[in-house]
Amino acid sequence: MEFELIKSLESSRARAGKIKTAHGEIETPIFMPVGTAGSVKGIHTRDLKEDIKAQIILGNTYHLYLRPGIEVIEQAGGLHKFNRWDRPILTDSGGYQVFSLGDIRKLSEEGARFQSHIDGSYHMFTPENVIDIQRFIGADIMMAFDECTPGDADFDYAKKSLELTQRWLDRCFNQFYNTEPKYGYLQTLFPIIQGNTFAGLRKKASAHAISFNPDGFAIGGLSVGEAEEVMYEMTEVVTADLPGNKPRYLMGVGTPVNILESIHRGIDMFDCVMPTRNGRNGMLFTSEGTINIRNKKWENDHSPIDGNGTSFVDLYSKAYLRHLIISNEMLGAQIASQHNLAFYLWLVKTARQKILDGDFLSWKDEMITRLKNKI
Amino acid sequence: MEFELIKSLESSRARAGKIKTAHGEIETPIFMPVGTAGSVKGIHTRDLKEDIKAQIILGNTYHLYLRPGIEVIEQAGGLHKFNRWDRPILTDSGGYQVFSLGDIRKLSEEGARFQSHIDGSYHMFTPENVIDIQRFIGADIMMAFDECTPGDADFDYAKKSLELTQRWLDRCFNQFYNTEPKYGYLQTLFPIIQGNTFAGLRKKASAHAISFNPDGFAIGGLSVGEAEEVMYEMTEVVTADLPGNKPRYLMGVGTPVNILESIHRGIDMFDCVMPTRNGRNGMLFTSEGTINIRNKKWENDHSPIDGNGTSFVDLYSKAYLRHLIISNEMLGAQIASQHNLAFYLWLVKTARQKILDGDFLSWKDEMITRLKNKI
Repeated sequence: MEFELIKSLESSRARAGKIKTAHGEIETPIFMPVGTAGSVKGIHTRDLKEDIKAQIILGNTYHLYLRPGIEVIEQAGGLHKFNRWDRPILTDSGGYQVFSLGDIRKLSEEGARFQSHIDGSYHMFTPENVIDIQRFIGADIMMAFDECTPGDADFDYAKKSLELTQRWLDRCFNQFYNTEPKYGYLQTLFPIIQGNTFAGLRKKASAHAISFNPDGFAIGGLSVGEAEEVMYEMTEVVTADLPGNKPRYLMGVGTPVNILESIHRGIDMFDCVMPTRNGRNGMLFTSEGTINIRNKKWENDHSPIDGNGTSFVDLYSKAYLRHLIISNEMLGAQIASQHNLAFYLWLVKTARQKILDGDFLSWKDEMITRLKNKI
Repeated sequence: MEFELIKSLESSRARAGKIKTAHGEIETPIFMPVGTAGSVKGIHTRDLKEDIKAQIILGNTYHLYLRPGIEVIEQAGGLHKFNRWDRPILTDSGGYQVFSLGDIRKLSEEGARFQSHIDGSYHMFTPENVIDIQRFIGADIMMAFDECTPGDADFDYAKKSLELTQRWLDRCFNQFYNTEPKYGYLQTLFPIIQGNTFAGLRKKASAHAISFNPDGFAIGGLSVGEAEEVMYEMTEVVTADLPGNKPRYLMGVGTPVNILESIHRGIDMFDCVMPTRNGRNGMLFTSEGTINIRNKKWENDHSPIDGNGTSFVDLYSKAYLRHLIISNEMLGAQIASQHNLAFYLWLVKTARQKILDGDFLSWKDEMITRLKNKI
């Protein structure tokens, strides 16, 4: 994987860049739609590519490992062949999902033992087998196995947890260098920088991650319950220390406002389930603010969903979409998800253009005012 | 509405024709995807048109009347504007849905009083207001309000019911002739021929329907629990009496085999929820037979869903579709529904070509053998 830093600004840490992978290029800043179980919920691969204009999608190691299972993905020739997405794929490491399991997981030095949310069966993730699994999935960008701490963890827990994550990171890179890709193209491994809300821990984690000279860096353990200002502060602490010539990925973030504020703080890559999950529930993100399409006020509004929208679904009317969502018609969830994803991709693409043009900061501030509207 | 009979055969009652409506032409025999609440479940209008190549879709008066309600559809400028489908639309009359409600409906000379399945509220359908509602919906082809009897009704009930349906038909045509279209284009009204499984009643119903000289005829009350052979027999009884220069629509039918057998018996138009409903459940119709994609045998079958398929979704693999359906991923239901609808449209299109070529009968028999396979 290569990263080309195309433009950086004086007034902001925002950057425009380009990532080159075996499955094509990614223009950064970028948003990655989440394909949890190998499909972005409600969206055909064709529309993801041609309508939403996604450049890279995310797969969840935890979900894919449990179902369909690694053997099926290997037989398919990797996830790209399995789900017919021929552009780049990034997989998370399962660390976050295991963290989310709460009571049904147990950490040890060796790794994380957990019960499947599907059938209660027992499984073990270790730094080594999580790398192996991602080799089988064939992700262009793999993630290291980590412990994700809750937003309100105390310093002692956060420190001990980070030390474990760091020992696991050593083992991840060791396994990465001792194994080969399965499908004839190169894969890369990003470390995940943890450290909770403690600047000192975050700096320590950054230094340790940098020591591996990886192709890029992920920042984890944010947007997990801490205040938004704290998330921005931690992001700043980390990006200040990271080398400029490598991409930075802020995991699981966030709202359109979060994304613009984080681009401003030097982030290049994002993923979040919000556009699809909130979409299924009838919430639309637009350049004029958010819309709750269930609201009675849209019942007889026959104007297009989003007059500025880039997707073909934006031509359906608000009244029609409201009717579909209220009636639990599958097409309603499809339309709202597709609209939201197209909007997220428009947002990062426009941010990139503004960076290239040198007027990102003023655009960002103006945009954020509008994004906060409830229409 | 005009109908052009293009070709009929000696060896079979199968016919190829063309219906002309204000929203374009329909080549018959045709299958009409069901858009119950104004959307064909899981399918974008664009894909319905460009990928599935549907020529006409069906809307349900009962469902649309209850939600979003007639006022919203009127404000939109009719259903075509509301759901962005600019080709022909046929609406049923609500008779079948009211029949399906069982205990929560009560018939009288006036009409049918029923409770909404959504909120239990009371409503009344009469021959007159069902015509009015379909005027507001703006269907190109409207259906008369009828009583649909169960497949096992006795003669006395069937006879009394038919007499009521006939009196209602008089009132429907009366209302039809005394009202105007709302949106500036012509609509037409098809009578529904009832009579249960009694040839004499069916003949009586046909004669009465013919007396209105309508643009086309619907055959109702079949595929509601009676034996398949009885359905074919009743279809034959009716089509023998109907004028050749008008299209015949067999309501709610059926499997691919049912469709071919009914084309052979002189039917031109079909609708059924089977391709979408069974698709959501993981059943695929193909030219080689049916597939239960949930079956373990497909777990590692990475070949395309349907090597002969006409839809872009047919390029997804069986293993991937199985994974999506088993995982309750929305995309699985979308893919299976889209495949099945594209197959149904392929089937009637090919039947039409075989009729034009004069070799429908041998093709039909060969096809039916294959369609009955369980792959």
